[in-house]
Amino acid sequence: MIRKTRKSTSMKIEQFIAQSAGKWRSMRSSHSLAFQHFEEIISTIQITIIPNKDEQVLELLKANLDINLDPISPFKMSWEASSDWEEVDDSSMSSGSSILIPLPTSEDKGLILRSMGYTESTKARSSYQILLDGTLILSTQYEQSIAEERIWFVSTNVRCRSSIVKTSNGIGVLQTSFASEVRLTN
Amino acid sequence: MIRKTRKSTSMKIEQFIAQSAGKWRSMRSSHSLAFQHFEEIISTIQITIIPNKDEQVLELLKANLDINLDPISPFKMSWEASSDWEEVDDSSMSSGSSILIPLPTSEDKGLILRSMGYTESTKARSSYQILLDGTLILSTQYEQSIAEERIWFVSTNVRCRSSIVKTSNGIGVLQTSFASEVRLTN
Repeated sequence: MIRKTRKSTSMKIEQFIAQSAGKWRSMRSSHSLAFQHFEEIISTIQITIIPNKDEQVLELLKANLDINLDPISPFKMSWEASSDWEEVDDSSMSSGSSILIPLPTSEDKGLILRSMGYTESTKARSSYQILLDGTLILSTQYEQSIAEERIWFVSTNVRCRSSIVKTSNGIGVLQTSFASEVRLTN
Repeated sequence: MIRKTRKSTSMKIEQFIAQSAGKWRSMRSSHSLAFQHFEEIISTIQITIIPNKDEQVLELLKANLDINLDPISPFKMSWEASSDWEEVDDSSMSSGSSILIPLPTSEDKGLILRSMGYTESTKARSSYQILLDGTLILSTQYEQSIAEERIWFVSTNVRCRSSIVKTSNGIGVLQTSFASEVRLTN
């Protein structure tokens, strides 16, 4: 504890999630780089901290028995979107919810288990780190792709979220997206 | 030099600009938060490193005689945009160019002088810092607003750029934007 730096605190992910709890209105733009295609989505996102002993948390931990780390601030994220596409192919993306369980390995790094991934609808494990300026960086290896997300607070009530989807070898960049999220309620 | 950290190098901004030089195709989305309005812009951006003794560089330095710092890798940025707006109110934004002069104060921090600002068409001074993960953060105080930009490389040929425009008191967030930039030529 002697080498603690000035800006760091005991458990940054806990604070980040506490700050994220609430209902948000999200404006999201995604860019398909190869096709120069834009997509715009307005959605509402609800982030709710749930108890460590919640049944869904226990179930997700049970599915990841190879990881022996203590969960902190598990939360549920649910969203409801209205896309600019007239027909949404993948209706599972327009609304849904996911359980997320942070498992810190150090003050600013760790893993996050998700009951449903962001780009592929399967269970996923992300690694995270929090930069000195407070940006949360998430990296998730899916079967067909790698997603890198950055989430940062612009003010207490506005946060930004960018995501980059790469091919699974990490070379090609398939898609990027950016969301501006404005708090509706705590 | 004894306290140099592992990841840092002699002058990070120089490397960042060298990596940015070239012609880029940009897909940019901007979000007006109050009106939930999206705007999409496709443009080409050319970034060219110019000599310290270039006439436009000397002129911009002369206009900032109160700053006594050595310039490094001054560059010219020019852009040509095609907006989705049928009538572009501010035609100066759809194409133009700007001279930028980095003036490092330390390995990873400094000022950047611009001959034309991003959100307001006047000369501007930005402060910059480069985070350990390589992200360049620019902060510019204009008369009516504060702009905060982040630029980071996703791969050698893809970079992302986000910007947040706040009210000049730093409280209200007026607009955000996000650009995905793909290299066309070096």
